[in-house]
Amino acid sequence: MSFVLARRAERMNPSVIREILKVTERPGIVSLAGGLPSPDSFPVEAMRAACERVLRDTPREALQYAASEGFGPLREWVAAQLGERGLTVEAAQVLITTGSQQGLDLVGKVLIDAGSGVAVERPTYLGALQAFAPYEPEVVSLECDDDGPLPEALAAARGARFLYLLPNFQNPSGRCMSAARREVLAEAAQAMALPIVEDNPYGDLWFDAEPPPPLAVRAPGNTVYLGSFSKVLAPGLRLGYVVAPRALFPKLLQAKQAADLHTPGFNQRVVHEVIRDGFLSEHVPTVRARYQRHRDAMRDALQRHLPAGCRWNVPSGGMFFWLELPEGIDATAMLPKAVERGMAYVPGAAFFANHARANTLRLSFVTVPPEEIGRGVALLAETLAQALKEKA
Amino acid sequence: MSFVLARRAERMNPSVIREILKVTERPGIVSLAGGLPSPDSFPVEAMRAACERVLRDTPREALQYAASEGFGPLREWVAAQLGERGLTVEAAQVLITTGSQQGLDLVGKVLIDAGSGVAVERPTYLGALQAFAPYEPEVVSLECDDDGPLPEALAAARGARFLYLLPNFQNPSGRCMSAARREVLAEAAQAMALPIVEDNPYGDLWFDAEPPPPLAVRAPGNTVYLGSFSKVLAPGLRLGYVVAPRALFPKLLQAKQAADLHTPGFNQRVVHEVIRDGFLSEHVPTVRARYQRHRDAMRDALQRHLPAGCRWNVPSGGMFFWLELPEGIDATAMLPKAVERGMAYVPGAAFFANHARANTLRLSFVTVPPEEIGRGVALLAETLAQALKEKA
Repeated sequence: MSFVLARRAERMNPSVIREILKVTERPGIVSLAGGLPSPDSFPVEAMRAACERVLRDTPREALQYAASEGFGPLREWVAAQLGERGLTVEAAQVLITTGSQQGLDLVGKVLIDAGSGVAVERPTYLGALQAFAPYEPEVVSLECDDDGPLPEALAAARGARFLYLLPNFQNPSGRCMSAARREVLAEAAQAMALPIVEDNPYGDLWFDAEPPPPLAVRAPGNTVYLGSFSKVLAPGLRLGYVVAPRALFPKLLQAKQAADLHTPGFNQRVVHEVIRDGFLSEHVPTVRARYQRHRDAMRDALQRHLPAGCRWNVPSGGMFFWLELPEGIDATAMLPKAVERGMAYVPGAAFFANHARANTLRLSFVTVPPEEIGRGVALLAETLAQALKEKA
Repeated sequence: MSFVLARRAERMNPSVIREILKVTERPGIVSLAGGLPSPDSFPVEAMRAACERVLRDTPREALQYAASEGFGPLREWVAAQLGERGLTVEAAQVLITTGSQQGLDLVGKVLIDAGSGVAVERPTYLGALQAFAPYEPEVVSLECDDDGPLPEALAAARGARFLYLLPNFQNPSGRCMSAARREVLAEAAQAMALPIVEDNPYGDLWFDAEPPPPLAVRAPGNTVYLGSFSKVLAPGLRLGYVVAPRALFPKLLQAKQAADLHTPGFNQRVVHEVIRDGFLSEHVPTVRARYQRHRDAMRDALQRHLPAGCRWNVPSGGMFFWLELPEGIDATAMLPKAVERGMAYVPGAAFFANHARANTLRLSFVTVPPEEIGRGVALLAETLAQALKEKA
């Protein structure tokens, strides 16, 4: 092969987890691994009606090349929604992306030089690490407690191009950052000229109360905010958005245009058609209620089955539990044993940029029926009990 | 603003043309500028039926997260199609992308280091230059004749990461590379260990005869081949594909996953539903026939109106005529005058990576009705006559 790879390609490798988890696609495995929203939540009928209307009313526009910024009414909808949550932005600051994953790639492309610093949480969203990796950053992972990055840890981020945060029901830890911590971090970051990239795919999936307002509210000129329709509508449409300070928007737009010209106009118009008359305020509560039932099932199962020495918090929204196993248990090594017994999870190590904690794992509660959740957790407990026995 | 931009962001600027052409969105202007396929060609009814079937039969799969490689049956369809054109590939070599534009970004991400060489034609597709720019290549633009890059010019590409070609009805020049030239270039490139990136969005839009087989047929291990559904179905769906040698595929796949996880599964399934039973073999001839009528109208109008000293070839397919104006006429400077008179074109300079030829311009014949084409060309001729007078 004559192809010479770019140096950055060395950092572009399939995640170990992806390979391991291919086995979980076998029937009969209770997979608590996938970060997949529940298909029971997908608004199929609303989509069907919306497709029909779009192809009846504006087929030529929907199927033609379109502006890289995105479909105007959808950008306006996003701006209005964020306004209702206290984040005042103009539609002109909203860039529609092919999923918020693309937003991460564009942010990396515009802000990261090889060797420049990027600060992330411990743990953080693996897909973000993968999006940033091609730009060859030096990643600093900040010490966290159950409320997110510790303010005193922020000093380690000095000089970084940005601090990447998921404050709402984080994938993978499930934690939701308090208002107090948001305030402290937002101000401290602004004071040290550290921009924030705030990623919010799960913020609508709250169970008890809405999360606090975004950090972007406190530092709008210093924050890039990412949102997504994947968890409140459906991921297969690949629709997300980036909200950027005006000064930064043109470069993100240019990166977007070069990356794929524009996010499918058809999908944007269909989604806008679905959501324009308040559909989400009816739909999302049903998703929340479903996910809460599942969360409760997992909470109870963990309580019932797991041996002493495990630690976890009960998430107040989102899709995930994050478990800390007893010291010395390697969740990656343990996974094949779990799969043998008939369940799967995601080992937590890959969610750390560095200094991974091997005794962690992520459980997803949204896809598997509640009764299956209990079975899966029981199998996990058996696997763990065996691992502890072998370690002793 | 605290944001520090990456060095590569310096190369990421909106095209001058894009700004100029915003004015052409005024009604009353005969715009021969846009590279937009004709909406008259969009298969709206087929799309409508396909959306309905997908949402009826496989809604959960269509709306869920999906594999980064793409929808299996669509990959198989692509492999089979290429096989019929003499390019034997496995579905496992086919990566579905969010338009072939994304294919260009992924190729750049995987193959281009800052300062490494990339060879392109004179002129070449502007969107490719924009896709490659963030990876900071040294771009070499190869001398061409009406048949594409001159074999003797290839030496200038020695050491480049790849040679980027659009052999079929190139945007912007409209030329179609002969079988003989393909053979010479493919062999010479292989002999000098120069990979080829072969981009084919227009190959199905032939008027008189199918183009010769792809260069990839002669050098399959040395060529990355890009294709698109945009011009034979509709661009608003953003569906394309990359066909790569097996050794290169994993890195492209990883780049794809990090870029947007996967191309919308909904769109892939809908398109597959449209095309699976031979729809294109009925549909594309109608597109060809329409475009040929328009091509003829423009051919006749150019013949009738343009002053002496202009040079153009009549394209045998695709969407564009490429005009060389008399020396000393700057098509970029002339554009506002043309717009004042009521027509627009795309100045050719931006299609050159370097050493631009200012006296060139591109005309698109597919969107504007044939009678309007005549009017637009007449206005161009008036503009040009005035410019020549002023120059004299």
